[in-house]
Amino acid sequence: MSKGLKIVTIGGGSSYTPELIEGFIKYHEELPVSEIWLVDIEAGKEKLEIVGDLARRMIEKAGVNIEVHLTLDRKKALKNADYVTTQLRVGQLAARALDEKIPLKHGVIGQETNGPGGLFKAFRTIPVILDIAREMEEVCPDAWLINFTNPAGMVTEAVLRHSNITKIIGLCNVPIGMERGVADLMGVEPSRVRIDFAGLNHMVYGLDVFVDGESVKDQIIKLITDPAKAVTMKNIHAMGWEPEFLKALNLFPCPYHNYYYKTGDVLAQELKDAENGETRAEVVQRLEAELFELYKDKDLAIKPPQLEERGGAYYSDAAVRLIRSMHTDKCDIQAVNTINQGSIEGIPYESAIETSCVITKDGPKPINVGKLPVAVRGLIQQIKSFERVAIEAAVTGNYDTALLALTINPLVPSDRVAKLILDEMLEAHKDYLPQFFEEKELQDNLS
Amino acid sequence: MSKGLKIVTIGGGSSYTPELIEGFIKYHEELPVSEIWLVDIEAGKEKLEIVGDLARRMIEKAGVNIEVHLTLDRKKALKNADYVTTQLRVGQLAARALDEKIPLKHGVIGQETNGPGGLFKAFRTIPVILDIAREMEEVCPDAWLINFTNPAGMVTEAVLRHSNITKIIGLCNVPIGMERGVADLMGVEPSRVRIDFAGLNHMVYGLDVFVDGESVKDQIIKLITDPAKAVTMKNIHAMGWEPEFLKALNLFPCPYHNYYYKTGDVLAQELKDAENGETRAEVVQRLEAELFELYKDKDLAIKPPQLEERGGAYYSDAAVRLIRSMHTDKCDIQAVNTINQGSIEGIPYESAIETSCVITKDGPKPINVGKLPVAVRGLIQQIKSFERVAIEAAVTGNYDTALLALTINPLVPSDRVAKLILDEMLEAHKDYLPQFFEEKELQDNLS
Amino acid sequence: MSKGLKIVTIGGGSSYTPELIEGFIKYHEELPVSEIWLVDIEAGKEKLEIVGDLARRMIEKAGVNIEVHLTLDRKKALKNADYVTTQLRVGQLAARALDEKIPLKHGVIGQETNGPGGLFKAFRTIPVILDIAREMEEVCPDAWLINFTNPAGMVTEAVLRHSNITKIIGLCNVPIGMERGVADLMGVEPSRVRIDFAGLNHMVYGLDVFVDGESVKDQIIKLITDPAKAVTMKNIHAMGWEPEFLKALNLFPCPYHNYYYKTGDVLAQELKDAENGETRAEVVQRLEAELFELYKDKDLAIKPPQLEERGGAYYSDAAVRLIRSMHTDKCDIQAVNTINQGSIEGIPYESAIETSCVITKDGPKPINVGKLPVAVRGLIQQIKSFERVAIEAAVTGNYDTALLALTINPLVPSDRVAKLILDEMLEAHKDYLPQFFEEKELQDNLS
Amino acid sequence: MSKGLKIVTIGGGSSYTPELIEGFIKYHEELPVSEIWLVDIEAGKEKLEIVGDLARRMIEKAGVNIEVHLTLDRKKALKNADYVTTQLRVGQLAARALDEKIPLKHGVIGQETNGPGGLFKAFRTIPVILDIAREMEEVCPDAWLINFTNPAGMVTEAVLRHSNITKIIGLCNVPIGMERGVADLMGVEPSRVRIDFAGLNHMVYGLDVFVDGESVKDQIIKLITDPAKAVTMKNIHAMGWEPEFLKALNLFPCPYHNYYYKTGDVLAQELKDAENGETRAEVVQRLEAELFELYKDKDLAIKPPQLEERGGAYYSDAAVRLIRSMHTDKCDIQAVNTINQGSIEGIPYESAIETSCVITKDGPKPINVGKLPVAVRGLIQQIKSFERVAIEAAVTGNYDTALLALTINPLVPSDRVAKLILDEMLEAHKDYLPQFFEEKELQDNLS
Repeated sequence: MSKGLKIVTIGGGSSYTPELIEGFIKYHEELPVSEIWLVDIEAGKEKLEIVGDLARRMIEKAGVNIEVHLTLDRKKALKNADYVTTQLRVGQLAARALDEKIPLKHGVIGQETNGPGGLFKAFRTIPVILDIAREMEEVCPDAWLINFTNPAGMVTEAVLRHSNITKIIGLCNVPIGMERGVADLMGVEPSRVRIDFAGLNHMVYGLDVFVDGESVKDQIIKLITDPAKAVTMKNIHAMGWEPEFLKALNLFPCPYHNYYYKTGDVLAQELKDAENGETRAEVVQRLEAELFELYKDKDLAIKPPQLEERGGAYYSDAAVRLIRSMHTDKCDIQAVNTINQGSIEGIPYESAIETSCVITKDGPKPINVGKLPVAVRGLIQQIKSFERVAIEAAVTGNYDTALLALTINPLVPSDRVAKLILDEMLEAHKDYLPQFFEEKELQDNLS
Repeated sequence: MSKGLKIVTIGGGSSYTPELIEGFIKYHEELPVSEIWLVDIEAGKEKLEIVGDLARRMIEKAGVNIEVHLTLDRKKALKNADYVTTQLRVGQLAARALDEKIPLKHGVIGQETNGPGGLFKAFRTIPVILDIAREMEEVCPDAWLINFTNPAGMVTEAVLRHSNITKIIGLCNVPIGMERGVADLMGVEPSRVRIDFAGLNHMVYGLDVFVDGESVKDQIIKLITDPAKAVTMKNIHAMGWEPEFLKALNLFPCPYHNYYYKTGDVLAQELKDAENGETRAEVVQRLEAELFELYKDKDLAIKPPQLEERGGAYYSDAAVRLIRSMHTDKCDIQAVNTINQGSIEGIPYESAIETSCVITKDGPKPINVGKLPVAVRGLIQQIKSFERVAIEAAVTGNYDTALLALTINPLVPSDRVAKLILDEMLEAHKDYLPQFFEEKELQDNLS
Repeated sequence: MSKGLKIVTIGGGSSYTPELIEGFIKYHEELPVSEIWLVDIEAGKEKLEIVGDLARRMIEKAGVNIEVHLTLDRKKALKNADYVTTQLRVGQLAARALDEKIPLKHGVIGQETNGPGGLFKAFRTIPVILDIAREMEEVCPDAWLINFTNPAGMVTEAVLRHSNITKIIGLCNVPIGMERGVADLMGVEPSRVRIDFAGLNHMVYGLDVFVDGESVKDQIIKLITDPAKAVTMKNIHAMGWEPEFLKALNLFPCPYHNYYYKTGDVLAQELKDAENGETRAEVVQRLEAELFELYKDKDLAIKPPQLEERGGAYYSDAAVRLIRSMHTDKCDIQAVNTINQGSIEGIPYESAIETSCVITKDGPKPINVGKLPVAVRGLIQQIKSFERVAIEAAVTGNYDTALLALTINPLVPSDRVAKLILDEMLEAHKDYLPQFFEEKELQDNLS
Repeated sequence: MSKGLKIVTIGGGSSYTPELIEGFIKYHEELPVSEIWLVDIEAGKEKLEIVGDLARRMIEKAGVNIEVHLTLDRKKALKNADYVTTQLRVGQLAARALDEKIPLKHGVIGQETNGPGGLFKAFRTIPVILDIAREMEEVCPDAWLINFTNPAGMVTEAVLRHSNITKIIGLCNVPIGMERGVADLMGVEPSRVRIDFAGLNHMVYGLDVFVDGESVKDQIIKLITDPAKAVTMKNIHAMGWEPEFLKALNLFPCPYHNYYYKTGDVLAQELKDAENGETRAEVVQRLEAELFELYKDKDLAIKPPQLEERGGAYYSDAAVRLIRSMHTDKCDIQAVNTINQGSIEGIPYESAIETSCVITKDGPKPINVGKLPVAVRGLIQQIKSFERVAIEAAVTGNYDTALLALTINPLVPSDRVAKLILDEMLEAHKDYLPQFFEEKELQDNLS
């Protein structure tokens, strides 16, 4: 292995890429990357070139020896890859805007990874990721696929169930964000914080929270009832919690739990935001435009600090730290999405979970969780039921299965409303959902 | 065992009692009951006497040899009982009216056994049933407790977890009603219908539906999408189903599933009913008044046909058939609430489930279910999570736990609204919830 | 379904067939069989004709309308069958004799279904049964396969895991024999006895034993410690039990448990029998010769009473009763081998178990067992481990896997002795084990 | 916590103690121990003084600040302890000699922790450890109990099930020995080796074996078939493996697996050793005598190298490394005995397992294992069944339960032989088994 590592980043024209490059520069000594291939599609070519140029300037300035390749030929890029990262967005931010707005018209939360929006992001994304997985089987079967495309939990499970790729890890910045949030609240360095995570992607709980190995969970549970101290994400309004509820829950919820434990209040806030042209897609579209303006600056050779506003903070940092720990068999603890295999009781053996793992060269090894607290077991299992039916619909393009998935989603009020939303969103996203429309035509021919 | 069986019915003054008496008369040859003790509380004394007189007239007319005892002394009645049935309502229909109305004020479904109403019925009922269980341990430890007091699933689980009585069966008329509904739809005798039931009380599914052993599930699933053919209960509006949803679900839902798969529509209907003075409690109060007028008629010596309007149709018939099969070790199949012990995967081993059982002298033996279909697993587990936290709160009277239970209930939109409803309902039902208020005082003293 | 049922019996030339015919005659009214096809192989042609003639005489005498077909063309026979029964013995009794004698030379129990003998019977039988299953997929996919070829548990599991036939039931006469044994000991009619069975084939326990629904387990456990009252089989020496052991076990063991709880004593007895020319194969060879002499008698038109000495008492009776209950959706309780699906905790979901089932038109539905008593859980799981590795070896013909299976069998003392026995038995049964030798040749070519 | 840690070592007069002292000296900087209390019983007073004096000389020579206390007052020593280690031997080596010799008379393996010997060591030890646990509940409820008294797995489970102490870890030198064995075979430093351990104490497997994160399992499996390269213990004869067996097993067995996969050969070897006066107890008695002669030497102030011959190599080193990782929240990986809680599927949730754990200040956190390979699942579950019945017998002193435990042990050939061995060993160890004899007297009085 005298040659360095080959990294392939699909969706390489993303605004996140500079953070990824920064990471590979920072850890270059331990993680000897020699090639980074940034891959995108025709529609993303311009962005790819802007980002690619910035990446090259960053690497040059840092004085490390990494080749940057830009290409629209995905399969060529994948050949003999060591690690493949995916950060793609099928339909781009315009599709996200629809995911956020259509449900609101029917009185239902519109969100990128939850409810109807999450379902349709899964419908658009899963077939593309499965295509990538099949190409990997062919040209780089030993590579690890590090997915941070949302909905990361469903995407991971889809790959586990519908491809021969077993070396897949789903990555999210929620756990790292929660650890940094605790560090801020406790006034300590992030490296002194450790959280025992367990759950699903965007449905993960801190079972316990430690500073230097001593539990500080009780303190955190008191602090975060105050909206001013909520640990949250750029894309989620801080709301605080009823103190008695959180005390009885006795867990550190993740920011996305607002959607389930504060459904009514989140919906009201979303409706207000939408009225003001402040849906998350709209905000991000503006931010992205600004970022790409910055990236074009030939004098810029570092990751610009404005990127942190983008919302995906630490995503790429998390990815690089993960790859580094794997490459060096570091055996440190990181929270990722991986196959359950009995780690969390009551979730199917073959399903993806998000949980604290020991990161080895042989992949992430979940630290056993066992039984979750009774009060959260049901919600997590319900979301997993939804995810599994949703994946089935995404893969088969079956209309009835899609309606079933949407109806059993806890954010959707009835089979009737589910059908209204489903029909409207299928039509709106038609171009990115061939699996639903090809089948329909087939059915029409048959009948 | 030359002496006949001793039956004790707690809440004996209930309007359902004549059906129970009818059953014991009908099956007297196989089920040699010699004494029926009808027990009630001081507030129900008048009804007890009316019903008791009717019972005696019925027995006399039928010419069977059964003694009817009326008493307010529960423990005396329980002594050496063979079977104890419970059909009590703590706080009577007035409490039910509050359970239905208060949540509606906060935009939440108000219902006897679901959502906030179900939670408070559990809070009022569980301590009383546990008192009965403790008396049984003392004076009739070998008797079977046949509970058909709602919420029957939670009550059964509370007895399993918080008493030493293991001979408890929870009974509901939903399964028998579904079998009769299928018989009507298919135009066959009920005895030719068999449904493989699995789930929880008021959350039970028909996994398959047979006539003469041949599956008719597909036909039933098509028929019941039409509201005119819905299989429902007196207390639940027939609504039909989106055909594609039901086809993908591929199960026969129970009437109470409306609350979860049609939440928005049910809420709208309830708000309309409430406006018209047509909440279920109001309807039933009127029906009960009429029934008791009938019962007073000294010439009446049969169960009057009007009782079927009451809503609990087949309840007592189900109870007598159950007791008969146990007594005769009949080994026929009936659906009851009993301990899971692995019958349904993913539900705790010690929890109560509602499922098809072989009925033996040694109790009900669940027919194994295994894994439920993915799409329903989550909802059932979520309701079970709710039930377990609710039971914990009912037994401890802990406010925080109560708030946790209410917040995780799928019909409740947020921790904030949960707290508003909880506070209002605790105050409204104060007289029947000593466990919450005694503790509060204690806490106040301590602080 | 105006036409009657078509039954196909593979291994139709077996000495058991007259009992089967007797059963179909006896239950003809409820179970309207119109054709029985007796199938055998070239080597069994003579026996087939003897038995077939007797069958026709029996049917004629009984005056029922059943056609008997004799054929060596299995696939033709299977076409459109309703029920297929298998009672074949690959290698006939000569192979059994080797299974019994070779292990003894190495100080290991030699037995038809346990230890090395059981392993080799599985190796010879499973490929043949899988061939039948594949033919059934093609020409009678809706038929039920009722297997009573030993080792019935492994054969059932092999079909479940290695074919698309799910309608398979494994049948054994041990449970019915235990029920009749209890009836004898208690002096009651067998119909009044019910045993809650759970375990694996030839490794089944009575968890409880009832007469008229009342437990008599304690009495049975006391009685059977006396060798004179042991409930056993024709092929197993009665030995009694240490009373304190059985009391602590608190279960009703099956006759085959002697091999595991009395290994040393059984081995000693077997060595003595072998010395006297009284191995079971030798005894049965003599019995079979006598039976076929009887069968040839043109005046014989009933099942001769001497058949009961043969050892398979009630086998065929059990088969006919099972088919009758399925055909009539009788919902009575019988113990059969079927897929676990969570009925017994700790045994794989997809594995075959032997357990009490409700027999319906839709197949056998196990009554849930849950956790087995701690003391027997381990042995049952160990036998299941052995069975699964053994099936893997039977299907793949892999030498290493075969050695693994034999070494982990609890009757085999070491990997070294396992290898000695394996090599000798592979050579001895070479003609019936193409899967092992074809692969070996392939390997030799490759190396 | 300005004050240093208080360590209490029960069985402090053991010959192992100098290794423990050496460890505390070596890691003193990270692990600031200020007091070590060596506790023993009256019969061990002389040894305690010899060892205690050596400990003090070692500490003085090392120039660290640790007080050494010697006492026979266990409860006084335990007060406010931080870590309690147990290395006691009830009945001393004389009892071990009986455990080894009596079973041999009946043709059964005699061994310290397996078969009848292991059972009786459990019977003698568990009540004493439970006494210690109860004292700890009272005087040092926050201390961790690090048990390395055999049989360590059963002792750990007994504490988990029969005391309120949850902070218990069972420690064994087998895993560390296997890692060092691999290091030797591969010619690398032990720190570069990592084994994924899973199983039970003395029944642990290496699921995979890594050097620098790369699997070397296939190489190890080939190497250790050669007896000359077997990774074994001082007390177990190296025997090698049938290569095809080990290849199919595809795991790295522990030395104690010889007892189960090579039962016959081990028994033959034991019989030979016994004839030559070379049972392990006899060898160890001689070694111990020599060691104590060395320890008496006032000029000795280090752990003498001869201790490594004793057989418990690395035991104390393992203990100190474990305590260090806990105290510093090191999060490294070590294999210990701890509560399962779903880590290994098919073993009870509350049972003790031996498995690779992340070692934190909050205790050991098992890395999830999930399903064990089919071929070993059964044996492990059988041993666990045995252990649980054995613990029940140890705690209750019930004769029948003891006979049940012994009969289901895979090394014991029948209930009959089990009874012979049980009766002889109960008599031989009478003085150390009050639970059996007090109960017996009681029973005699009653009858």
